[in-house]
Amino acid sequence: MPAVGMVGGGQLARMTAAAAAGLGATFRVLAESESESAALVTRDVVLGSHLSLSDILAFAIECDVITFDHEHVPGDVLAALEADGVLVRPGSAALRYTQDKLAMREGLRALGVPCPRFAPVATVADVTSFTGGTWPVVLKAISGGYDGKGVWVCGSPAEAQEVFSHGIALLAEEFIPFRRELAALVARSPSGQGAAYPVVQTVQVDGICREVLAPAPGLHAELAVEAEALALRIAAELGVTGLLAVELFETRDGRLLVNELAMRPHNSGHWTIEGARTSQFEQHLRAVLDLPLGSCAPAGSFAVMANLLGGTDPDIYDRYLHVMAADPAVKVHFYGKGVRVGRKIGHVTIVAGPGEDVDAVRDRARRAASYLRWGTEDGD
Amino acid sequence: MPAVGMVGGGQLARMTAAAAAGLGATFRVLAESESESAALVTRDVVLGSHLSLSDILAFAIECDVITFDHEHVPGDVLAALEADGVLVRPGSAALRYTQDKLAMREGLRALGVPCPRFAPVATVADVTSFTGGTWPVVLKAISGGYDGKGVWVCGSPAEAQEVFSHGIALLAEEFIPFRRELAALVARSPSGQGAAYPVVQTVQVDGICREVLAPAPGLHAELAVEAEALALRIAAELGVTGLLAVELFETRDGRLLVNELAMRPHNSGHWTIEGARTSQFEQHLRAVLDLPLGSCAPAGSFAVMANLLGGTDPDIYDRYLHVMAADPAVKVHFYGKGVRVGRKIGHVTIVAGPGEDVDAVRDRARRAASYLRWGTEDGD
Repeated sequence: MPAVGMVGGGQLARMTAAAAAGLGATFRVLAESESESAALVTRDVVLGSHLSLSDILAFAIECDVITFDHEHVPGDVLAALEADGVLVRPGSAALRYTQDKLAMREGLRALGVPCPRFAPVATVADVTSFTGGTWPVVLKAISGGYDGKGVWVCGSPAEAQEVFSHGIALLAEEFIPFRRELAALVARSPSGQGAAYPVVQTVQVDGICREVLAPAPGLHAELAVEAEALALRIAAELGVTGLLAVELFETRDGRLLVNELAMRPHNSGHWTIEGARTSQFEQHLRAVLDLPLGSCAPAGSFAVMANLLGGTDPDIYDRYLHVMAADPAVKVHFYGKGVRVGRKIGHVTIVAGPGEDVDAVRDRARRAASYLRWGTEDGD
Repeated sequence: MPAVGMVGGGQLARMTAAAAAGLGATFRVLAESESESAALVTRDVVLGSHLSLSDILAFAIECDVITFDHEHVPGDVLAALEADGVLVRPGSAALRYTQDKLAMREGLRALGVPCPRFAPVATVADVTSFTGGTWPVVLKAISGGYDGKGVWVCGSPAEAQEVFSHGIALLAEEFIPFRRELAALVARSPSGQGAAYPVVQTVQVDGICREVLAPAPGLHAELAVEAEALALRIAAELGVTGLLAVELFETRDGRLLVNELAMRPHNSGHWTIEGARTSQFEQHLRAVLDLPLGSCAPAGSFAVMANLLGGTDPDIYDRYLHVMAADPAVKVHFYGKGVRVGRKIGHVTIVAGPGEDVDAVRDRARRAASYLRWGTEDGD
């Protein structure tokens, strides 16, 4: 059975490790320390930096294919790996679209994919010229952002000026007063096979995903098909191998606009561990190994996932006992990470059967996450 | 989060490792070699022998509780561990019933649990006297048997004589012409909480489990409740902590008789990974850690599990590709074990939704297992 090496030792690698064990694939992780989330549970851990070509090259020697827990391996390192004959999936050409938001926007525009209007901006005057004087406007770091970091919604020229003071390359984007956010998760293998999970609704607070509803409640079947087809087309056109998560805005007038792309297992797909026939982690491994893809069919009527963020009390154990006792059907996943306020330390999933009420299940997931964080079911 | 140490590095420990990662519990394995099934995927592996008190004591130092992948730790070693203050779950008093079949039969009889008639036997004359001259009769090794090893169905005094020639302590049991075999899997925590999975049908060939149908098709609701209640009662009366699998005969006249007991995750519960809200591996960890137990509710309408046995061609990879491509909803689990004829090297599970046909799903699971073994869908 071939060996997959994942660069990065975060929770995505941790959950991929469990999938690899079932699949029978050898799984190795390049982590920065022994205490990283995936390093705590993976047999084959190599310590090294994702910024270092020599570290990744040494890691790659015992791997048939290299893939990623995050998008932070520099483009020149990726290109050098490929030049050295390392099988990198997704490849550097595809990953560029997740590392350079201007390239992503231009690439999607060239494909005719609906996106918010955008322009690179160097000064507040550029922003004002882009908006035509209408505010708010969204400023984004062209590279290096994640989880809401590197995204600013600016209500005035003064707020934009503040963002420019960081001295980073920026992109201006039209502010979309969306109805809600959706995510379309697909897999694509090097052979060209594609598979699409049901489209989900994501709920973000301060740029951080807090809840995922799978499938997106009340989504028009036409729009769901459009989102899945769009994600499959983007995966094919950009030459993605592995998973592609397409974050979308559903506008108030029922259109879809692409917000972000990620080419790896994605927070919007954690529900698939229990909620789909094939988890996104197994699917990513199957795709990067060019194995036939698994079924994306849902396992239940619907699933709700809520992220667990750290609260102020790091000793979560007693709260964990309470949540387990209060709701035996809540599935808690911990990432082995220390508790810090606002840090993603785990998630909970509830899969519901026929006849269960989405709002009631959502409430149960929220209560569990709130109790784990704050010791009360009514927190956030 | 507390640390669980599992003695034994087989596939049960391997699958428990994945559950521990989700639960956030530290998980350590005492394995005999680096190449054992669980040692291949677990971060904290200690090499040592399950027969050695000093090895287990050294292993236990960094564990809050010790549990087991198998029943082969000698009783005196278990007792010495407990005398030394190690938290052993299940404890030696309970485990004795899985290690000594005479103790098990006598213990169950004392509880009034329906079992086949039995008697310890030392000679063929004892057997003939036990049967009253009626054959066949079942002879069982009082200790050391597993997976059909140590069980002989003897059709004549000559066949019984052959078994006695092994020179081991034996038990004679009434031969039960059963309708089918069932298994009731329950969990019990030290606090006394109990939880019961739906009763399943198991299909054995030559004493090896080949298929599990969950729930047992067409089982009378009364009999299902009786089996669950019986297993919960046995767990409580014998002081089991962790999982208890009760293997049962359903007789042709609709009675239940206990065949065997196991106090660990069990082959009849592998379907719970995808097919139940809480997998048996997570449930075992919750029970031995005295955490509140998880929901045993099924995740789908029913599930079918088929064991993968080794065939004659050890290179399974191409056959694996075929099976993945042929049926994207089949979930294959490999144990990382080398292929040998008849060896359990993995299993496949299919979880079915409303309206699916049990026989059709069973056929798909069988075809996948057969193809993986023999390269044909029509093998065994």
